Amino acid sequence: MKQIERLIERIIKRVNINLRAFQFDVTPYMHELVSHMEMLNYNAFYGITEHHPTHFVFSKSSIAGSYFFGKCVIEQSTIYDSDIRGDELKRAGDHIEIEGDEFIMEEDEMVRILDSYLIKTLVHSFSHDPRSPEEFFIRNTVSMHYANIHGAPMVGCFLGPLATVDLTTARSCIFGAYSYVQTGTIMDKIVERGVVWVKSNSFEFLYRYPRHVIDHYIHYIESNTSPVGVLMDFCEQRKEELRQVFYGKFEMPMVAIPNTSAMNRYALIKGNTSIGDNVLIAQRAYLQDAHMGQGSNAQENSYIICSRLEGNDVTAHGAKIIHTHLGNYVFVGFNSFLHGKPDMKLIIEDHNIIMPHTIIDLEEPLHIPSNQLVWGYIRNRHDLAENSISLDKLCTVDGKISQGNMVFDGKGEDMVTAFKIRIKRILEQNYGHAEVSQDISYYMLQPYLSGKQQGLFPSIEINP
Amino acid sequence: MKQIERLIERIIKRVNINLRAFQFDVTPYMHELVSHMEMLNYNAFYGITEHHPTHFVFSKSSIAGSYFFGKCVIEQSTIYDSDIRGDELKRAGDHIEIEGDEFIMEEDEMVRILDSYLIKTLVHSFSHDPRSPEEFFIRNTVSMHYANIHGAPMVGCFLGPLATVDLTTARSCIFGAYSYVQTGTIMDKIVERGVVWVKSNSFEFLYRYPRHVIDHYIHYIESNTSPVGVLMDFCEQRKEELRQVFYGKFEMPMVAIPNTSAMNRYALIKGNTSIGDNVLIAQRAYLQDAHMGQGSNAQENSYIICSRLEGNDVTAHGAKIIHTHLGNYVFVGFNSFLHGKPDMKLIIEDHNIIMPHTIIDLEEPLHIPSNQLVWGYIRNRHDLAENSISLDKLCTVDGKISQGNMVFDGKGEDMVTAFKIRIKRILEQNYGHAEVSQDISYYMLQPYLSGKQQGLFPSIEINP
Repeated sequence: MKQIERLIERIIKRVNINLRAFQFDVTPYMHELVSHMEMLNYNAFYGITEHHPTHFVFSKSSIAGSYFFGKCVIEQSTIYDSDIRGDELKRAGDHIEIEGDEFIMEEDEMVRILDSYLIKTLVHSFSHDPRSPEEFFIRNTVSMHYANIHGAPMVGCFLGPLATVDLTTARSCIFGAYSYVQTGTIMDKIVERGVVWVKSNSFEFLYRYPRHVIDHYIHYIESNTSPVGVLMDFCEQRKEELRQVFYGKFEMPMVAIPNTSAMNRYALIKGNTSIGDNVLIAQRAYLQDAHMGQGSNAQENSYIICSRLEGNDVTAHGAKIIHTHLGNYVFVGFNSFLHGKPDMKLIIEDHNIIMPHTIIDLEEPLHIPSNQLVWGYIRNRHDLAENSISLDKLCTVDGKISQGNMVFDGKGEDMVTAFKIRIKRILEQNYGHAEVSQDISYYMLQPYLSGKQQGLFPSIEINP
Repeated sequence: MKQIERLIERIIKRVNINLRAFQFDVTPYMHELVSHMEMLNYNAFYGITEHHPTHFVFSKSSIAGSYFFGKCVIEQSTIYDSDIRGDELKRAGDHIEIEGDEFIMEEDEMVRILDSYLIKTLVHSFSHDPRSPEEFFIRNTVSMHYANIHGAPMVGCFLGPLATVDLTTARSCIFGAYSYVQTGTIMDKIVERGVVWVKSNSFEFLYRYPRHVIDHYIHYIESNTSPVGVLMDFCEQRKEELRQVFYGKFEMPMVAIPNTSAMNRYALIKGNTSIGDNVLIAQRAYLQDAHMGQGSNAQENSYIICSRLEGNDVTAHGAKIIHTHLGNYVFVGFNSFLHGKPDMKLIIEDHNIIMPHTIIDLEEPLHIPSNQLVWGYIRNRHDLAENSISLDKLCTVDGKISQGNMVFDGKGEDMVTAFKIRIKRILEQNYGHAEVSQDISYYMLQPYLSGKQQGLFPSIEINP
């Protein structure tokens, strides 16, 4: 048996032990998923700059098509086509407050991935677990296509495709496809497909997609085949273009990038796209006929197509914005799918908060007035009324309300404030980031092409 | 001062101390030679396969545009556009005989480059110093454009452009431009420009190019400018194309490569070129309208242009073959320049040995019959008569002879035998090498693009 097969067996075993209580077996999800031979055609990339702590340790692993940044230790893992971005890790000397605990970092934080299998997964931000401030660990975990692990250390978890675990430490959990979780900690739980769940000390927001809707957008026909559905198709259709960008083979149009803005060299631009000041475009962002107004961003794996962002708009990781017009200060959360059509425009006015994992897939033109919180599944005005609330109104809520498939309990004002603080922080990063992002050096790494170690990499250590 | 400038100061100081006896100062050769900003545009490459021991250690250095292989330690050095090929290093368990001493290698040999500055230099083969079998060291040394360090450990040396030190341990020596030395050991010597010197226990071969000839092909106008002349111009004109190959930007024609043959992915092919069985084409080889007959090779930095190699021909590192027809089993030594013209063909019959650093630059068509040793500067039949001897005749020599600028002393048969053994070994490597060469994984490394460490690389360690 090749060493890479043995590696995968090892990971399966370890994850299954952690999920034994649920009698869950990750085997079918992993087998045949990625042909090992296909992985040989992909390289991995490690970015360094003088501005970020650099330390990359890598052993007994395969990291095809992946991208890393900052301090990372990867052992006994398979990381395929994933973005591991350690540039926002906490640093020695930082004053940090998490869940009310304050502390000063004694050393730089490090992403540490052990015995895990991540495919097309984004790992980003700093870990929000005050019990382990120096280590953002991902252990005994399998994460599927386009999942996001965002500031979320975890052990023994399975993330279905397009799932997001955000600022939450997770142990022995199964996160179903397209579920979003931000609950601080979570243990021994199954989060069903299409659940959007935000919980803090003072409020809880819970939305469940109807099952037939989730099936349409993302589902498995069999667990041992690739997931299918509108969202998968959308990404898979553009996969090859994004791959070409990494190998310098995608012909991009000349686009003026202001000095104050930064476009990652592994972002894709096509059509008639324009970039304003203080704009940040991350790697694997896909921009086609897009207008990026000043102070806007397009984070990893986001798509902005035939759309206009007026300014200071946030396109979070994995969000898709198509035939849509965003006013100023609109926040579009993780993996949201805003799907206007050429003859059915989606117009979203200023200061809207589109919750993570929102699907707006129009069957008529739609206009969303300013200052709303918007969530769930929306096709028309009727759906919008059911799946939105004005921020002003939400601020007055103190107790339990429900609208359609959404239940909210607690202080509405706290949820609005939490979002506003977060959005403000993201927007601030768009300013002044340009300089840092332009001076990234890239290391390109390739696996052994033959022999026992085929598909694996040698041990690598890179230090400043 | 930037760290890279401090590094260069350090190297200069150390080399100068070693060459103090000659009051030689390397400073002018190094300053302004390579713009540091230009170096930022070049990456470095490290190749690994399952067939070769891998260990790459790299610190406080700059390695722009360079290529490494096998076990290498690089510290406090600047290695610009150089090929460091450790794939023929000795390995643990190998039985080795050098200068009559036999031993078994207890560990893998390693190339170790410290406090040195190598520009466009080839370092290759295993070190031929029985006093240090495990370490192929290059210390306190400056080596200029297109020089070859071939199985030659050295401390405190300066190699001028196109110089070759072959299978020779050198200490505190200056090797003039286009000089070739193969003397086993050499200490505290200045080897003048254009000297070709082979010395063993039983024979000595010495040729000196006339000064005006060397001036025409390679010389410095000022020591603080780049070298000029026919040979420099020839290489510099093709430099950009070769660079494009490394960045995947050179469009190559479709050429059938037999399964038994190996073309390095960083070799360049253009025009109507054909490749026979068991052919080896190394990186940075440049083939244009070339016919490579079965069992032939084109080693690093060699150029084969509008030429036909019938079969089992060796094109050693840096050799240039233009409008030339080689019969079978022709050996063309290091940095030779065989320059036929469209209307003045150079025909070299079977079993010829073209000495390293031979210049045949025709002013009339020329036919070299089989089984000759050929050296020096040749433009026509008259020069050929003066600068060649039949191998049969050389075998009968025992004592001193001279022809033109060449003096031979000793047993001619031993020189012929030594060459034949070496050629046989090289040809054997062309067979069965293909498999190994096709499975090379490449690591692409890039320097810091800004800040104090601009132009330097982080510390890197790669282990199997």
